[in-house]
Amino acid sequence: MTTKSDAPTATRRIGIIAPGRRLEEEWAVKATSLARQTFGASAPELLFHPQCLEDYGHFAGPDEVRLEALVEMANDPAIDAIWIARGGYGACRIAEQAIDRFGLAARKKTWLGYSDAGFLLGGLYARGFRHVAHGPMVADITRIGGDKALRCALNWLNSGDPSATDPAMQSGTAYLAFNLAILSEMLGTPLEPDFTGHVLMIEEVSEHLYAIDRALFHITSSPNVRRASGIMLGRVSDIPENDIPFGEEAEDMVKYWCARAGIPYLGRADIGHDPDNRIVPFGLKL
Amino acid sequence: MTTKSDAPTATRRIGIIAPGRRLEEEWAVKATSLARQTFGASAPELLFHPQCLEDYGHFAGPDEVRLEALVEMANDPAIDAIWIARGGYGACRIAEQAIDRFGLAARKKTWLGYSDAGFLLGGLYARGFRHVAHGPMVADITRIGGDKALRCALNWLNSGDPSATDPAMQSGTAYLAFNLAILSEMLGTPLEPDFTGHVLMIEEVSEHLYAIDRALFHITSSPNVRRASGIMLGRVSDIPENDIPFGEEAEDMVKYWCARAGIPYLGRADIGHDPDNRIVPFGLKL
Repeated sequence: MTTKSDAPTATRRIGIIAPGRRLEEEWAVKATSLARQTFGASAPELLFHPQCLEDYGHFAGPDEVRLEALVEMANDPAIDAIWIARGGYGACRIAEQAIDRFGLAARKKTWLGYSDAGFLLGGLYARGFRHVAHGPMVADITRIGGDKALRCALNWLNSGDPSATDPAMQSGTAYLAFNLAILSEMLGTPLEPDFTGHVLMIEEVSEHLYAIDRALFHITSSPNVRRASGIMLGRVSDIPENDIPFGEEAEDMVKYWCARAGIPYLGRADIGHDPDNRIVPFGLKL
Repeated sequence: MTTKSDAPTATRRIGIIAPGRRLEEEWAVKATSLARQTFGASAPELLFHPQCLEDYGHFAGPDEVRLEALVEMANDPAIDAIWIARGGYGACRIAEQAIDRFGLAARKKTWLGYSDAGFLLGGLYARGFRHVAHGPMVADITRIGGDKALRCALNWLNSGDPSATDPAMQSGTAYLAFNLAILSEMLGTPLEPDFTGHVLMIEEVSEHLYAIDRALFHITSSPNVRRASGIMLGRVSDIPENDIPFGEEAEDMVKYWCARAGIPYLGRADIGHDPDNRIVPFGLKL
């Protein structure tokens, strides 16, 4: 399935692949329709790689299929941006091998995703890719208010519209944004970027508070993370109930671990697994 | 509460503290009673630190209370062994500070625990403590068949009885055993031991298969873990149901990641969150 708009060829061409879980075809149709409604004649062309619909256990196809789809789209010079279809889990199984095969066309592209896609985005930023951002994915269309999230993503992918970014982000400051669990499992792997001098935003979803505290121990013990200029906390949502209450809130836990590690805690960030999830371009904000 | 047996003073004295979650007093009573039934006049003396019963949110007392209890018992020359009361979560909040304050008396002791206690055991082994083992804790008394697990633990704590260890373990081979999530969050922290030349046993409980796969990516990416002589897989139990089946079994996942990382996969280990959880003394098996 390649869903094309009727827009003229001068429009931006956005390639969509699913390194983790699959898309439902209906979501692709909705996203395409939303792009047309929002931009009319200047709508970007959404090119869904057929791989997005593959169905292989947890994954949108076997590793080799997801890898080849990613490499194919990334290296296609006629595509301007790669928009990650969905998170879930799976990017870490293919990210390093994919990046090893990315050429100049991949470096020129804009990259957008979050959650599990952080493995790929972290690895790209670690290799010096300059147009990498945390932000809404195609599957966010399924959320209440998801249209808004996708419009932000499309605006940013289409024109680099800065209104989609967190207004608290400051010019002259460098940023990175990751899901906490993904960040935690990325440390010490070839996908780990250099956090030196960056404000590190973290968010979490569907994790027990004790697991969040444990991951905070891990990330704040990292010498690399300790070189960050500070940590900001996005939203922590859908926390499963444990058999006893943890007794601390997520922000208290982040303050505690930041204080222990000597990392400045810089307050809240406007990111999370929800439709208000802001776009955070990696690196220096101009 | 200090529960003392009527045994003569020549018996082993086992100090019990809870670095994570709290004990119920009833479990302490049961464990003491079991020790007396099992060993009669030669029963070890179980010294439950009052901290074990403290109640502070998720934890058996605030960090300072757990830390001081651990340091006090570890440095007490009249105590022969430290038996961790229970896992849950919390050892990583106090382990490094505690170990920094441990003296010779702590080094002479036998240490036993698993799961969350792995943070402490890993840190001890990293600092050259020689009598550290993965194995049943007091709270295992609550399991069906828990009496058997506690008898094994008590036998080993009391006399170093090797029948409590995994019969598959070979003389002349060095071993380490950890819960996978704990191991994953321990890497890159001051608690991480040197895995070089060790057989690394892992087990898991109550984690989604996608989270297990993600943690396997993380640990098998570690240059330190790659210096292990191999990985053995214990039991993976109480896997929560996800909205889609993962499509692979835990052992397939371990084989996959071991193959990718060039780590020999050495088969199954007889450890896990269950009453058959074997004792694995850390280091060289004599």
